[in-house]
Amino acid sequence: MKIGILGSGQLGRMLALAGYPLGHTFTFFDTAPNSATSNLGATTLATFDDHTALGAFAAACDVVTYEFENVPYQAALTINSHVPVYPPARALKVSQDRVIEKEFLQGLGIATPAFLAVSSEAELHSACLTLGTPCIVKTRRLGYDGKGQVRINSQGDIAGAWRELSGAPLIVEGFIPFTRELSVIAVRSIDGTVLTYPLAQNVHRSGILHRSEIPAPEVTQELQAAAYQIASTVLQELQYVGVIAIELFDVDGELLVNELAPRVHNSGHATIDGVVTSQFENHIRAITGTALGSVEPRSRSVMYNLVGTLPDLSRLTALPNAKLHLYGKEPRAGRKLGHVTLLNPSQRDEQTLEQLLGGVSVAVVTPTS
Amino acid sequence: MKIGILGSGQLGRMLALAGYPLGHTFTFFDTAPNSATSNLGATTLATFDDHTALGAFAAACDVVTYEFENVPYQAALTINSHVPVYPPARALKVSQDRVIEKEFLQGLGIATPAFLAVSSEAELHSACLTLGTPCIVKTRRLGYDGKGQVRINSQGDIAGAWRELSGAPLIVEGFIPFTRELSVIAVRSIDGTVLTYPLAQNVHRSGILHRSEIPAPEVTQELQAAAYQIASTVLQELQYVGVIAIELFDVDGELLVNELAPRVHNSGHATIDGVVTSQFENHIRAITGTALGSVEPRSRSVMYNLVGTLPDLSRLTALPNAKLHLYGKEPRAGRKLGHVTLLNPSQRDEQTLEQLLGGVSVAVVTPTS
Repeated sequence: MKIGILGSGQLGRMLALAGYPLGHTFTFFDTAPNSATSNLGATTLATFDDHTALGAFAAACDVVTYEFENVPYQAALTINSHVPVYPPARALKVSQDRVIEKEFLQGLGIATPAFLAVSSEAELHSACLTLGTPCIVKTRRLGYDGKGQVRINSQGDIAGAWRELSGAPLIVEGFIPFTRELSVIAVRSIDGTVLTYPLAQNVHRSGILHRSEIPAPEVTQELQAAAYQIASTVLQELQYVGVIAIELFDVDGELLVNELAPRVHNSGHATIDGVVTSQFENHIRAITGTALGSVEPRSRSVMYNLVGTLPDLSRLTALPNAKLHLYGKEPRAGRKLGHVTLLNPSQRDEQTLEQLLGGVSVAVVTPTS
Repeated sequence: MKIGILGSGQLGRMLALAGYPLGHTFTFFDTAPNSATSNLGATTLATFDDHTALGAFAAACDVVTYEFENVPYQAALTINSHVPVYPPARALKVSQDRVIEKEFLQGLGIATPAFLAVSSEAELHSACLTLGTPCIVKTRRLGYDGKGQVRINSQGDIAGAWRELSGAPLIVEGFIPFTRELSVIAVRSIDGTVLTYPLAQNVHRSGILHRSEIPAPEVTQELQAAAYQIASTVLQELQYVGVIAIELFDVDGELLVNELAPRVHNSGHATIDGVVTSQFENHIRAITGTALGSVEPRSRSVMYNLVGTLPDLSRLTALPNAKLHLYGKEPRAGRKLGHVTLLNPSQRDEQTLEQLLGGVSVAVVTPTS
């Protein structure tokens, strides 16, 4: 099939790299050229409100998907009038606004952090009193990688948070004293089969995912089943097709949903090397009406993001069980340039990698003979 | 780096798919357009004796490699006057002519089938007497997938074989009553490190590879070490850089070299899914001066070629541990269209796949309840 992807970044790149072996071809739609996918298919350059361009793009594809959740709902509808768009447009609507998302989840009986929508400084004050401090104020839309959010530790922080974020609709979320951050990557096929990958355990730095481990350590069957239950409820309700990522807080064994991402996700990158069928391949399988592939883990796998600048790649590639994935992008502060997945790493392997990523030079002492 | 590949078929495709994640880009050189790589980089269309085109192609690359061993030696030299060509041009010279190849191997003390070069029907008669029947007469150059060879079972077959093959320089090889066909994929880095993959056990049909299993069953450490010894001797002598495939006959535990292929090879395709670092990735690592990756197997892996026509892909992709790799080529008799690798297959899994490949329709009996 000819698969159209809205967006042309690293997720589109990895979708294409997973999809070519299945016999598909790829074309991208974005507002600006992106070196991540420039060698893997043509890119239509236009804005997401250019419905003529969207229609022409769709008409040249057999199916269209997207690699970011801020695709305008109307753009998805326009494309869907030509060819199927998966995941369905409703998934965009639900996930683009943190308030709508949490109301959707609570309507399904799925636990989330407590929250209140606010649209004035007075409402922000009131919400902080109701939810208590610390709490987090976020823009309802367009936040990612920790952008568009401020933590409020006490009433004294409110004025500053309001100055920083006002102008956009906001949400205040109660602070969750979580044991750890988990996520579950799930996939639903056109015929309704739902599979969940092993839970991933995630560590963020400065709001950006730093380390993701699959399978997450110390996961009981009960916890994995709870994640499956959440995923299948959401996917069934949305009549979803494709991969979804569900970010979770583990609070002493209870799962709360932090956020949905209706797409392949950074915390699923370890599935490329660590699972029989990667999240990218299963997304492509799902949207092309192919049976889903096995999500059995092949090893314990730990992914680290390469953010901002690349480490010494000659040392990184010399680690025997390191699988490198670069995105073909120019270095820039805060930009995700690639990731590396360690297969069955020892603690020492991880220390070595952390040192490489931290730019810390490590003296290797060779015994004199 | 920008990597140039001479040839643009499925081997180039899989090299590119393995190389993009390492941050490289690809461009191809071939005499005709090929859909296998048409989406993965630009292709220069020219003949291999167009030294102007070769020079311009080379000048736009950082390093050049090839995906077939019949690249003219002079073409490799022209490119090498601009940028490095790996594997080195001498590997082409040695492997393009079956007589030169066997003389090269014997000069290194490596066992091969007995052989004689022949250039007349009288010489063919004489060679068949010397080597005994059955024996195999082959063109010295340009044979592949069983093309350009005839088996001579008795003196009565000689005239027919001569009619079929005369016109090209020929070689007669003694028939080897082998226990099994094996191959070893080996790789040498610029700094001289040699790694060998686990031996593959291969089964051919109509001269085309049908099934390849890694690790080959019942391989003693001694046998794997003998394969390493052969590979490292050849690679060292050629000051080789990149992947080589060495086809072997196992005769009651003794290894004879049948053929060298100075490139990634069909019998190494199972390494994509079955080994930590695939033959494609290690070839790219080698020619870009990167440390070689681990060649540890991750599972028992059995590859089947998809030749001529594709089987029912919906049933193939429904096999839980089947990894599909299509080459984006139109079906044609005898053409390799893709391969599928089964991870840790049971005997039953293999039977199911063989039936799918054979086009045999299997009735699935569902018990009535």
